[in-house]
Amino acid sequence: MSTVIYLNGEYLPLEKATVSVEERGFLFADGIYEVLRLYRGHPFQLEAHLQRLRRSAQGARLPLPQAVPDLPAIIERLAAENDLHDTSIYIECTRGAAHPRTHAFPAEPHPTLLVMPQSIYTLPADAFTRGVSTVTVPDLRWRRCDIKSIMLLPNILAKQQAREQGAFEAIFVRDGVVTEGSSMNTFAVIDGTLATHPADQGILAGITRQVVLALAAELGIAIGEQTFTLEQMYNAQEAFLTSTSAEVLPITQIDGRPIGNGRPGPVTMRLVEAFRQKTGGWR
Amino acid sequence: MSTVIYLNGEYLPLEKATVSVEERGFLFADGIYEVLRLYRGHPFQLEAHLQRLRRSAQGARLPLPQAVPDLPAIIERLAAENDLHDTSIYIECTRGAAHPRTHAFPAEPHPTLLVMPQSIYTLPADAFTRGVSTVTVPDLRWRRCDIKSIMLLPNILAKQQAREQGAFEAIFVRDGVVTEGSSMNTFAVIDGTLATHPADQGILAGITRQVVLALAAELGIAIGEQTFTLEQMYNAQEAFLTSTSAEVLPITQIDGRPIGNGRPGPVTMRLVEAFRQKTGGWR
Repeated sequence: MSTVIYLNGEYLPLEKATVSVEERGFLFADGIYEVLRLYRGHPFQLEAHLQRLRRSAQGARLPLPQAVPDLPAIIERLAAENDLHDTSIYIECTRGAAHPRTHAFPAEPHPTLLVMPQSIYTLPADAFTRGVSTVTVPDLRWRRCDIKSIMLLPNILAKQQAREQGAFEAIFVRDGVVTEGSSMNTFAVIDGTLATHPADQGILAGITRQVVLALAAELGIAIGEQTFTLEQMYNAQEAFLTSTSAEVLPITQIDGRPIGNGRPGPVTMRLVEAFRQKTGGWR
Repeated sequence: MSTVIYLNGEYLPLEKATVSVEERGFLFADGIYEVLRLYRGHPFQLEAHLQRLRRSAQGARLPLPQAVPDLPAIIERLAAENDLHDTSIYIECTRGAAHPRTHAFPAEPHPTLLVMPQSIYTLPADAFTRGVSTVTVPDLRWRRCDIKSIMLLPNILAKQQAREQGAFEAIFVRDGVVTEGSSMNTFAVIDGTLATHPADQGILAGITRQVVLALAAELGIAIGEQTFTLEQMYNAQEAFLTSTSAEVLPITQIDGRPIGNGRPGPVTMRLVEAFRQKTGGWR
Protein backbone atom coordinates (compact mmCIF):
# COMPACT_ATOMS: atom_id res chain seq x y z
CA MET A 1 0.00 0.00 0.00
CA SER A 2 1.23 3.44 -0.85
CA THR A 3 2.27 5.87 1.87
CA VAL A 4 -0.11 8.79 2.39
CA ILE A 5 1.52 12.16 2.99
CA TYR A 6 0.26 15.69 3.63
CA LEU A 7 1.08 18.52 1.25
CA ASN A 8 -0.49 21.97 1.41
CA GLY A 9 -3.90 20.91 2.65
CA GLU A 10 -4.12 17.64 0.77
CA TYR A 11 -3.61 14.05 1.85
CA LEU A 12 -2.24 12.11 -1.10
CA PRO A 13 -0.09 9.14 -2.06
CA LEU A 14 3.62 9.87 -1.88
CA GLU A 15 4.07 9.08 -5.59
CA LYS A 16 1.62 11.84 -6.50
CA ALA A 17 3.08 14.45 -4.16
CA THR A 18 4.96 17.02 -6.21
CA VAL A 19 5.97 20.66 -5.98
CA SER A 20 6.48 23.18 -8.75
CA VAL A 21 9.98 23.63 -10.16
CA GLU A 22 9.48 27.25 -9.06
CA GLU A 23 9.21 26.09 -5.44
CA ARG A 24 11.75 28.16 -3.49
CA GLY A 25 12.67 25.13 -1.41
CA PHE A 26 13.94 23.60 -4.66
CA LEU A 27 15.55 26.73 -6.15
CA PHE A 28 17.00 28.48 -3.09
CA ALA A 29 16.92 26.04 -0.17
CA ASP A 30 14.48 28.61 1.20
CA GLY A 31 13.04 26.33 3.84
CA ILE A 32 13.31 24.67 7.22
CA TYR A 33 12.43 21.22 8.52
CA GLU A 34 11.86 19.01 11.53
CA VAL A 35 12.07 15.29 12.07
CA LEU A 36 10.08 13.91 14.96
CA ARG A 37 9.57 10.48 16.26
CA LEU A 38 6.49 8.36 16.85
CA TYR A 39 6.58 5.74 19.58
CA ARG A 40 3.62 3.37 19.46
CA GLY A 41 1.89 5.80 17.14
CA HIS A 42 2.33 8.86 19.37
CA PRO A 43 4.68 11.80 18.71
CA PHE A 44 7.51 12.20 21.23
CA GLN A 45 8.40 15.74 22.37
CA LEU A 46 5.95 17.22 19.86
CA GLU A 47 5.74 20.61 21.54
CA ALA A 48 9.54 20.94 21.63
CA HIS A 49 9.74 20.17 17.90
CA LEU A 50 7.01 22.68 17.08
CA GLN A 51 8.73 25.32 19.18
CA ARG A 52 11.98 24.72 17.32
CA LEU A 53 10.12 24.89 13.99
CA ARG A 54 8.85 28.32 14.96
CA ARG A 55 12.34 29.41 16.05
CA SER A 56 13.85 28.21 12.75
CA ALA A 57 11.14 30.07 10.85
CA GLN A 58 11.99 33.25 12.72
CA GLY A 59 15.69 32.78 11.98
CA ALA A 60 15.00 32.28 8.28
CA ARG A 61 12.32 35.00 8.28
CA LEU A 62 9.88 32.45 6.87
CA PRO A 63 6.15 33.02 7.17
CA LEU A 64 4.79 29.82 8.68
CA PRO A 65 2.13 28.05 6.62
CA GLN A 66 -1.36 28.64 8.01
CA ALA A 67 -1.78 24.93 8.74
CA VAL A 68 1.12 24.79 11.22
CA PRO A 69 -1.23 24.90 14.26
CA ASP A 70 -2.95 21.83 12.77
CA LEU A 71 0.27 19.80 12.79
CA PRO A 72 -0.73 17.62 15.77
CA ALA A 73 -3.96 16.68 13.98
CA ILE A 74 -2.15 16.17 10.65
CA ILE A 75 0.37 13.85 12.30
CA GLU A 76 -2.41 11.95 14.04
CA ARG A 77 -4.25 11.44 10.75
CA LEU A 78 -1.07 10.32 8.95
CA ALA A 79 -0.37 7.86 11.75
CA ALA A 80 -3.90 6.44 11.44
CA GLU A 81 -4.02 6.31 7.63
CA ASN A 82 -0.59 4.72 7.36
CA ASP A 83 -0.95 2.54 10.46
CA LEU A 84 2.26 3.98 11.87
CA HIS A 85 3.77 2.82 15.13
CA ASP A 86 7.50 3.34 15.51
CA THR A 87 8.70 5.64 12.80
CA SER A 88 9.70 9.22 12.06
CA ILE A 89 7.70 12.11 10.68
CA TYR A 90 9.40 14.62 8.40
CA ILE A 91 8.05 18.18 8.29
CA GLU A 92 9.23 20.84 5.85
CA CYS A 93 8.14 24.47 5.55
CA THR A 94 9.31 26.64 2.67
CA ARG A 95 8.55 30.06 1.26
CA GLY A 96 6.70 28.19 -1.51
CA ALA A 97 6.56 28.66 -5.26
CA ALA A 98 6.97 32.15 -6.68
CA HIS A 99 7.35 33.66 -10.13
CA PRO A 100 9.70 34.97 -11.38
CA ARG A 101 12.78 33.54 -9.63
CA THR A 102 14.34 36.39 -7.65
CA HIS A 103 16.36 36.22 -4.45
CA ALA A 104 14.31 38.74 -2.48
CA PHE A 105 11.15 37.54 -0.75
CA PRO A 106 8.05 37.26 -2.93
CA ALA A 107 5.52 40.01 -2.21
CA GLU A 108 2.77 37.46 -1.59
CA PRO A 109 4.34 34.21 -0.44
CA HIS A 110 2.37 30.97 -0.54
CA PRO A 111 4.37 28.91 1.96
CA THR A 112 4.58 25.16 1.51
CA LEU A 113 3.92 22.64 4.28
CA LEU A 114 4.96 19.03 3.73
CA VAL A 115 4.46 16.31 6.33
CA MET A 116 5.51 12.77 5.52
CA PRO A 117 6.33 9.56 7.34
CA GLN A 118 9.96 8.60 7.10
CA SER A 119 11.66 5.35 7.97
CA ILE A 120 13.97 5.43 10.98
CA TYR A 121 17.64 4.61 10.79
CA THR A 122 18.49 1.02 10.21
CA LEU A 123 21.09 0.72 12.94
CA PRO A 124 23.49 -2.19 13.04
CA ALA A 125 22.04 -4.78 15.46
CA ASP A 126 25.03 -4.38 17.78
CA ALA A 127 25.13 -0.58 17.64
CA PHE A 128 24.07 -0.16 21.29
CA THR A 129 26.29 -2.88 22.70
CA ARG A 130 29.41 -2.34 20.58
CA GLY A 131 28.98 1.35 19.74
CA VAL A 132 29.66 2.97 16.39
CA SER A 133 32.75 4.42 14.78
CA THR A 134 33.05 8.01 13.63
CA VAL A 135 35.39 10.13 11.54
CA THR A 136 35.95 13.88 11.70
CA VAL A 137 35.57 16.41 8.89
CA PRO A 138 36.15 20.16 8.77
CA ASP A 139 33.00 22.11 9.67
CA LEU A 140 32.54 24.32 6.60
CA ARG A 141 28.86 25.00 7.22
CA TRP A 142 27.31 28.42 7.49
CA ARG A 143 27.30 30.24 10.82
CA ARG A 144 23.61 29.83 11.63
CA CYS A 145 23.48 26.12 12.31
CA ASP A 146 20.89 26.87 14.99
CA ILE A 147 18.38 27.34 12.16
CA LYS A 148 17.26 23.88 11.01
CA SER A 149 17.40 24.88 7.36
CA ILE A 150 17.31 22.49 4.42
CA MET A 151 20.80 23.66 3.37
CA LEU A 152 22.24 20.21 4.00
CA LEU A 153 24.81 19.74 1.23
CA PRO A 154 27.80 19.85 3.65
CA ASN A 155 25.99 17.40 5.94
CA ILE A 156 25.35 15.05 3.02
CA LEU A 157 28.98 15.19 1.93
CA ALA A 158 30.16 14.56 5.49
CA LYS A 159 27.78 11.61 6.01
CA GLN A 160 28.78 10.10 2.67
CA GLN A 161 32.47 10.44 3.54
CA ALA A 162 31.84 8.65 6.84
CA ARG A 163 30.10 5.79 5.08
CA GLU A 164 32.94 5.48 2.58
CA GLN A 165 35.40 5.26 5.46
CA GLY A 166 33.32 2.55 7.09
CA ALA A 167 32.05 4.84 9.84
CA PHE A 168 28.50 5.52 11.01
CA GLU A 169 28.74 9.27 11.48
CA ALA A 170 30.96 12.21 10.54
CA ILE A 171 31.74 14.71 13.28
CA PHE A 172 32.32 18.33 12.36
CA VAL A 173 35.36 20.14 13.75
CA ARG A 174 35.67 23.94 13.50
CA ASP A 175 38.94 25.61 14.48
CA GLY A 176 39.91 22.53 16.47
CA VAL A 177 36.59 22.46 18.35
CA VAL A 178 34.09 19.60 18.03
CA THR A 179 30.71 21.05 17.04
CA GLU A 180 28.36 18.17 16.23
CA GLY A 181 27.72 15.26 13.89
CA SER A 182 26.36 15.58 10.36
CA SER A 183 22.87 14.73 11.64
CA MET A 184 23.42 14.15 15.37
CA ASN A 185 24.70 15.99 18.44
CA THR A 186 27.97 14.88 20.01
CA PHE A 187 28.68 14.29 23.71
CA ALA A 188 31.90 13.32 25.46
CA VAL A 189 32.73 12.42 29.04
CA ILE A 190 35.87 14.40 29.85
CA ASP A 191 37.40 14.34 33.34
CA GLY A 192 34.16 12.86 34.64
CA THR A 193 31.98 15.63 33.22
CA LEU A 194 29.47 15.12 30.43
CA ALA A 195 30.35 17.82 27.88
CA THR A 196 28.52 18.95 24.75
CA HIS A 197 28.78 22.05 22.58
CA PRO A 198 26.64 24.90 23.93
CA ALA A 199 23.37 25.59 22.12
CA ASP A 200 24.64 28.63 20.22
CA GLN A 201 24.66 29.44 16.48
CA GLY A 202 27.36 26.83 15.88
CA ILE A 203 25.11 23.79 16.29
CA LEU A 204 21.55 22.63 15.87
CA ALA A 205 20.44 21.99 19.42
CA GLY A 206 18.70 18.64 19.16
CA ILE A 207 15.55 17.81 21.07
CA THR A 208 17.16 14.49 22.08
CA ARG A 209 20.21 16.46 23.23
CA GLN A 210 17.93 18.49 25.50
CA VAL A 211 16.16 15.43 26.86
CA VAL A 212 19.51 13.73 27.54
CA LEU A 213 20.83 16.77 29.41
CA ALA A 214 17.70 16.72 31.59
CA LEU A 215 18.04 12.98 32.19
CA ALA A 216 21.72 13.38 33.08
CA ALA A 217 20.80 16.06 35.62
CA GLU A 218 18.16 13.76 37.12
CA LEU A 219 20.76 10.99 37.37
CA GLY A 220 23.22 13.30 39.12
CA ILE A 221 25.73 13.21 36.28
CA ALA A 222 27.99 16.29 36.15
CA ILE A 223 27.14 18.31 33.01
CA GLY A 224 29.11 20.94 31.16
CA GLU A 225 27.52 22.65 28.17
CA GLN A 226 30.94 23.72 27.00
CA THR A 227 33.00 23.29 23.87
CA PHE A 228 35.72 20.66 23.76
CA THR A 229 38.53 20.16 21.28
CA LEU A 230 39.12 17.22 19.00
CA GLU A 231 42.20 16.45 21.08
CA GLN A 232 40.02 16.30 24.20
CA MET A 233 37.57 14.04 22.42
CA TYR A 234 40.39 11.69 21.38
CA ASN A 235 41.25 11.37 25.08
CA ALA A 236 37.66 11.28 26.38
CA GLN A 237 36.56 8.51 28.73
CA GLU A 238 33.33 8.02 26.79
CA ALA A 239 31.43 9.59 23.91
CA PHE A 240 28.04 9.25 22.27
CA LEU A 241 25.73 10.70 19.66
CA THR A 242 22.12 11.76 20.04
CA SER A 243 19.37 12.23 17.48
CA THR A 244 15.63 11.84 17.17
CA SER A 245 16.05 8.78 14.97
CA ALA A 246 19.01 7.08 16.64
CA GLU A 247 18.31 8.19 20.24
CA VAL A 248 21.49 7.77 22.35
CA LEU A 249 24.22 5.92 20.46
CA PRO A 250 27.63 5.07 21.98
CA ILE A 251 30.73 6.11 20.04
CA THR A 252 33.58 3.67 20.48
CA GLN A 253 35.90 4.88 17.76
CA ILE A 254 36.89 8.21 16.26
CA ASP A 255 39.32 8.63 13.36
CA GLY A 256 40.44 5.03 13.88
CA ARG A 257 41.26 5.54 17.59
CA PRO A 258 39.33 3.88 20.39
CA ILE A 259 37.38 6.07 22.79
CA GLY A 260 38.20 5.05 26.37
CA ASN A 261 38.61 1.28 26.41
CA GLY A 262 36.88 0.97 23.04
CA ARG A 263 33.56 -0.12 24.53
CA PRO A 264 30.41 1.84 25.43
CA GLY A 265 31.04 3.52 28.78
CA PRO A 266 28.93 3.41 31.96
CA VAL A 267 27.62 7.01 31.79
CA THR A 268 26.61 6.44 28.17
CA MET A 269 24.80 3.20 28.96
CA ARG A 270 22.92 4.76 31.86
CA LEU A 271 21.68 7.43 29.46
CA VAL A 272 20.83 4.89 26.72
CA GLU A 273 18.68 3.10 29.30
CA ALA A 274 17.16 6.23 30.83
CA PHE A 275 16.21 7.52 27.39
CA ARG A 276 14.67 4.19 26.46
CA GLN A 277 12.62 4.25 29.63
CA LYS A 278 11.47 7.77 28.92
CA THR A 279 10.21 6.85 25.46
CA GLY A 280 8.67 3.66 26.73
CA GLY A 281 11.27 1.57 24.94
CA TRP A 282 10.03 0.43 21.58
CA ARG A 283 12.77 -2.01 20.71
CA MET B 1 1.28 31.87 -24.01
CA SER B 2 2.78 29.63 -21.41
CA THR B 3 6.55 29.33 -21.05
CA VAL B 4 8.00 26.00 -22.17
CA ILE B 5 10.73 24.56 -19.98
CA TYR B 6 12.88 21.44 -20.05
CA LEU B 7 12.75 18.90 -17.22
CA ASN B 8 14.39 15.47 -17.33
CA GLY B 9 13.95 14.83 -21.04
CA GLU B 10 10.60 16.54 -21.46
CA TYR B 11 9.60 19.91 -22.83
CA LEU B 12 6.53 21.08 -20.99
CA PRO B 13 4.63 24.17 -19.86
CA LEU B 14 6.09 25.74 -16.73
CA GLU B 15 2.81 25.26 -14.83
CA LYS B 16 3.01 21.51 -15.36
CA ALA B 17 6.68 21.17 -14.42
CA THR B 18 6.92 19.55 -11.02
CA VAL B 19 9.34 17.43 -9.03
CA SER B 20 8.65 14.82 -6.38
CA VAL B 21 8.64 15.91 -2.74
CA GLU B 22 11.39 13.30 -2.39
CA GLU B 23 13.58 15.30 -4.80
CA ARG B 24 16.90 15.83 -2.98
CA GLY B 25 17.11 19.36 -4.36
CA PHE B 26 13.98 20.07 -2.29
CA LEU B 27 14.91 18.07 0.85
CA PHE B 28 18.68 18.62 1.13
CA ALA B 29 19.66 21.46 -1.25
CA ASP B 30 21.56 18.65 -2.94
CA GLY B 31 22.05 20.50 -6.20
CA ILE B 32 23.89 23.12 -8.21
CA TYR B 33 22.82 25.68 -10.76
CA GLU B 34 23.86 28.10 -13.48
CA VAL B 35 22.28 31.21 -14.90
CA LEU B 36 23.34 32.17 -18.38
CA ARG B 37 22.35 34.94 -20.64
CA LEU B 38 20.89 35.06 -24.13
CA TYR B 39 21.64 38.05 -26.31
CA ARG B 40 19.53 38.18 -29.47
CA GLY B 41 18.60 34.55 -28.85
CA HIS B 42 22.16 33.27 -28.50
CA PRO B 43 23.84 32.13 -25.28
CA PHE B 44 26.76 34.26 -24.10
CA GLN B 45 29.84 32.47 -22.70
CA LEU B 46 28.06 29.14 -22.90
CA GLU B 47 31.22 27.05 -22.69
CA ALA B 48 32.41 28.92 -19.58
CA HIS B 49 29.06 28.29 -17.87
CA LEU B 50 29.11 24.61 -18.76
CA GLN B 51 32.67 24.30 -17.48
CA ARG B 52 31.65 25.89 -14.20
CA LEU B 53 28.63 23.58 -13.99
CA ARG B 54 31.00 20.62 -14.27
CA ARG B 55 33.30 22.10 -11.63
CA SER B 56 30.39 22.68 -9.24
CA ALA B 57 29.24 19.11 -9.82
CA GLN B 58 32.68 17.83 -8.93
CA GLY B 59 32.75 19.97 -5.78
CA ALA B 60 29.35 18.65 -4.69
CA ARG B 61 30.19 15.11 -5.88
CA LEU B 62 27.07 15.22 -8.04
CA PRO B 63 26.70 12.82 -10.94
CA LEU B 64 25.81 15.03 -13.92
CA PRO B 65 22.54 14.16 -15.64
CA GLN B 66 23.13 12.29 -18.90
CA ALA B 67 21.55 15.11 -20.88
CA VAL B 68 24.15 17.70 -19.85
CA PRO B 69 26.05 17.40 -23.17
CA ASP B 70 22.75 18.24 -24.91
CA LEU B 71 22.44 21.55 -23.05
CA PRO B 72 23.37 23.69 -26.07
CA ALA B 73 20.63 21.99 -28.12
CA ILE B 74 18.14 22.20 -25.23
CA ILE B 75 18.79 25.92 -24.84
CA GLU B 76 18.45 26.45 -28.59
CA ARG B 77 15.11 24.66 -28.61
CA LEU B 78 13.82 26.62 -25.59
CA ALA B 79 14.89 29.86 -27.28
CA ALA B 80 13.01 28.87 -30.44
CA GLU B 81 9.85 27.56 -28.73
CA ASN B 82 9.59 30.56 -26.42
CA ASP B 83 10.78 33.10 -29.00
CA LEU B 84 13.48 34.28 -26.61
CA HIS B 85 15.81 37.15 -27.43
CA ASP B 86 17.32 38.94 -24.45
CA THR B 87 16.73 36.91 -21.36
CA SER B 88 18.35 34.48 -18.91
CA ILE B 89 18.35 30.72 -18.83
CA TYR B 90 18.32 28.95 -15.47
CA ILE B 91 19.89 25.48 -15.24
CA GLU B 92 19.69 23.26 -12.16
CA CYS B 93 21.19 19.81 -11.59
CA THR B 94 20.38 17.80 -8.49
CA ARG B 95 20.94 14.28 -7.19
CA GLY B 96 17.26 13.70 -7.98
CA ALA B 97 14.50 11.96 -6.08
CA ALA B 98 15.38 9.05 -3.83
CA HIS B 99 13.58 6.89 -1.30
CA PRO B 100 13.88 6.76 1.65
CA ARG B 101 15.22 10.16 2.74
CA THR B 102 18.77 9.58 4.02
CA HIS B 103 21.71 11.93 4.00
CA ALA B 104 24.17 9.61 2.28
CA PHE B 105 24.11 9.37 -1.51
CA PRO B 106 21.46 7.10 -2.99
CA ALA B 107 22.93 3.88 -4.39
CA GLU B 108 21.36 4.51 -7.80
CA PRO B 109 20.84 8.23 -8.25
CA HIS B 110 18.50 9.58 -10.92
CA PRO B 111 19.84 13.10 -11.29
CA THR B 112 17.48 15.90 -12.21
CA LEU B 113 18.12 18.43 -14.99
CA LEU B 114 15.95 21.52 -15.16
CA VAL B 115 16.40 24.24 -17.80
CA MET B 116 14.06 27.20 -17.81
CA PRO B 117 13.92 30.71 -19.19
CA GLN B 118 14.10 33.35 -16.51
CA SER B 119 13.43 37.05 -16.73
CA ILE B 120 16.43 39.33 -16.33
CA TYR B 121 16.73 41.89 -13.57
CA THR B 122 14.50 44.87 -13.87
CA LEU B 123 17.15 47.49 -13.27
CA PRO B 124 16.21 51.05 -12.41
CA ALA B 125 16.33 53.07 -15.66
CA ASP B 126 19.14 55.23 -14.33
CA ALA B 127 21.17 52.36 -12.84
CA PHE B 128 24.04 52.77 -15.32
CA THR B 129 24.21 56.54 -15.20
CA ARG B 130 23.58 57.09 -11.47
CA GLY B 131 24.84 53.78 -10.11
CA VAL B 132 23.23 51.75 -7.36
CA SER B 133 23.49 51.79 -3.61
CA THR B 134 24.64 48.84 -1.53
CA VAL B 135 24.72 47.78 2.11
CA THR B 136 27.04 45.33 3.82
CA VAL B 137 26.11 42.22 5.78
CA PRO B 138 28.22 39.65 7.65
CA ASP B 139 29.25 36.76 5.37
CA LEU B 140 27.91 33.76 7.30
CA ARG B 141 27.87 31.44 4.30
CA TRP B 142 29.59 28.09 4.15
CA ARG B 143 33.24 27.89 3.15
CA ARG B 144 32.78 26.45 -0.34
CA CYS B 145 31.23 29.42 -2.08
CA ASP B 146 33.16 28.37 -5.20
CA ILE B 147 30.54 25.63 -5.64
CA LYS B 148 27.45 27.21 -7.21
CA SER B 149 25.12 25.25 -4.96
CA ILE B 150 21.44 25.97 -4.44
CA MET B 151 22.10 26.64 -0.73
CA LEU B 152 21.04 30.26 -1.10
CA LEU B 153 19.21 31.06 2.13
CA PRO B 154 21.92 33.48 3.38
CA ASN B 155 21.96 35.13 -0.05
CA ILE B 156 18.18 35.53 0.03
CA LEU B 157 18.28 37.04 3.51
CA ALA B 158 21.05 39.42 2.48
CA LYS B 159 19.26 40.53 -0.70
CA GLN B 160 16.01 41.04 1.18
CA GLN B 161 17.80 43.12 3.82
CA ALA B 162 19.29 45.29 1.07
CA ARG B 163 15.88 45.87 -0.48
CA GLU B 164 14.41 46.79 2.91
CA GLN B 165 17.18 49.33 3.40
CA GLY B 166 16.48 50.80 -0.04
CA ALA B 167 19.63 49.34 -1.58
CA PHE B 168 20.06 47.29 -4.74
CA GLU B 169 22.57 44.76 -3.44
CA ALA B 170 23.99 43.42 -0.20
CA ILE B 171 27.74 42.94 -0.02
CA PHE B 172 29.14 40.19 2.19
CA VAL B 173 32.00 41.00 4.57
CA ARG B 174 33.96 38.22 6.29
CA ASP B 175 36.46 39.11 9.00
CA GLY B 176 36.58 42.67 7.70
CA VAL B 177 37.23 41.55 4.11
CA VAL B 178 34.79 42.22 1.26
CA THR B 179 33.98 38.90 -0.43
CA GLU B 180 31.17 39.49 -2.94
CA GLY B 181 27.54 40.52 -3.32
CA SER B 182 24.57 38.28 -2.57
CA SER B 183 24.28 37.44 -6.28
CA MET B 184 27.07 39.49 -7.87
CA ASN B 185 30.85 39.89 -7.69
CA THR B 186 32.26 43.10 -6.26
CA PHE B 187 35.08 45.24 -7.70
CA ALA B 188 36.72 48.37 -6.34
CA VAL B 189 39.28 50.77 -7.76
CA ILE B 190 41.79 51.30 -4.95
CA ASP B 191 44.90 53.42 -5.46
CA GLY B 192 44.36 53.21 -9.21
CA THR B 193 44.20 49.41 -9.26
CA LEU B 194 41.08 47.42 -10.08
CA ALA B 195 40.75 44.97 -7.18
CA THR B 196 38.44 42.01 -6.71
CA HIS B 197 38.46 39.04 -4.33
CA PRO B 198 40.60 36.18 -5.68
CA ALA B 199 38.74 33.20 -7.16
CA ASP B 200 39.21 30.95 -4.13
CA GLN B 201 36.68 29.04 -2.01
CA GLY B 202 35.43 32.30 -0.48
CA ILE B 203 33.52 33.48 -3.56
CA LEU B 204 31.67 32.23 -6.59
CA ALA B 205 33.90 33.35 -9.44
CA GLY B 206 31.41 34.84 -11.89
CA ILE B 207 31.69 34.40 -15.63
CA THR B 208 31.06 38.15 -16.02
CA ARG B 209 33.83 38.76 -13.46
CA GLN B 210 36.19 36.77 -15.66
CA VAL B 211 35.15 38.59 -18.84
CA VAL B 212 35.56 41.94 -17.09
CA LEU B 213 39.06 41.04 -15.88
CA ALA B 214 40.02 40.11 -19.46
CA LEU B 215 38.52 43.34 -20.82
CA ALA B 216 40.34 45.39 -18.17
CA ALA B 217 43.61 43.74 -19.19
CA GLU B 218 42.92 44.57 -22.86
CA LEU B 219 42.20 48.17 -21.89
CA GLY B 220 45.47 48.41 -19.96
CA ILE B 221 43.77 48.86 -16.60
CA ALA B 222 45.93 47.73 -13.64
CA ILE B 223 44.35 44.65 -12.07
CA GLY B 224 44.79 43.08 -8.67
CA GLU B 225 42.95 39.87 -7.86
CA GLN B 226 43.43 40.54 -4.18
CA THR B 227 41.22 40.90 -1.16
CA PHE B 228 40.34 44.33 0.14
CA THR B 229 38.79 45.39 3.41
CA LEU B 230 35.49 47.14 3.94
CA GLU B 231 37.47 50.16 5.11
CA GLN B 232 39.35 50.17 1.80
CA MET B 233 36.08 49.90 -0.09
CA TYR B 234 34.65 52.86 1.84
CA ASN B 235 37.62 54.87 0.60
CA ALA B 236 37.75 53.41 -2.94
CA GLN B 237 37.81 55.73 -5.94
CA GLU B 238 35.22 53.62 -7.74
CA ALA B 239 33.31 50.39 -7.29
CA PHE B 240 31.00 48.19 -9.31
CA LEU B 241 29.14 44.90 -9.34
CA THR B 242 29.14 42.23 -12.03
CA SER B 243 26.69 39.46 -12.81
CA THR B 244 25.32 37.58 -15.77
CA SER B 245 21.98 39.34 -15.44
CA ALA B 246 23.08 42.85 -14.51
CA GLU B 247 26.40 42.89 -16.44
CA VAL B 248 28.63 45.71 -15.08
CA LEU B 249 26.79 47.95 -12.65
CA PRO B 250 28.33 51.02 -10.98
CA ILE B 251 28.12 51.25 -7.18
CA THR B 252 27.83 54.82 -6.00
CA GLN B 253 26.90 54.25 -2.38
CA ILE B 254 27.78 51.74 0.32
CA ASP B 255 26.31 51.75 3.82
CA GLY B 256 25.02 55.27 3.17
CA ARG B 257 28.46 56.65 2.20
CA PRO B 258 29.29 57.84 -1.30
CA ILE B 259 31.94 55.91 -3.25
CA GLY B 260 34.42 58.41 -4.72
CA ASN B 261 32.49 61.51 -5.74
CA GLY B 262 29.21 59.60 -5.59
CA ARG B 263 28.97 59.12 -9.34
CA PRO B 264 30.00 56.20 -11.59
CA GLY B 265 33.76 56.44 -12.13
CA PRO B 266 35.70 56.49 -15.41
CA VAL B 267 37.23 53.00 -15.09
CA THR B 268 33.78 51.59 -14.33
CA MET B 269 32.19 53.32 -17.30
CA ARG B 270 34.89 52.12 -19.67
CA LEU B 271 34.15 48.57 -18.54
CA VAL B 272 30.37 49.06 -18.77
CA GLU B 273 30.91 50.13 -22.38
CA ALA B 274 33.48 47.46 -23.22
CA PHE B 275 31.21 44.75 -21.84
CA ARG B 276 28.25 46.09 -23.79
CA GLN B 277 30.30 46.04 -26.96
CA LYS B 278 31.40 42.50 -26.29
CA THR B 279 27.83 41.28 -25.90
CA GLY B 280 26.67 43.26 -28.88
CA GLY B 281 24.77 45.66 -26.65
CA TRP B 282 21.17 44.65 -26.39
CA ARG B 283 19.83 47.70 -24.61
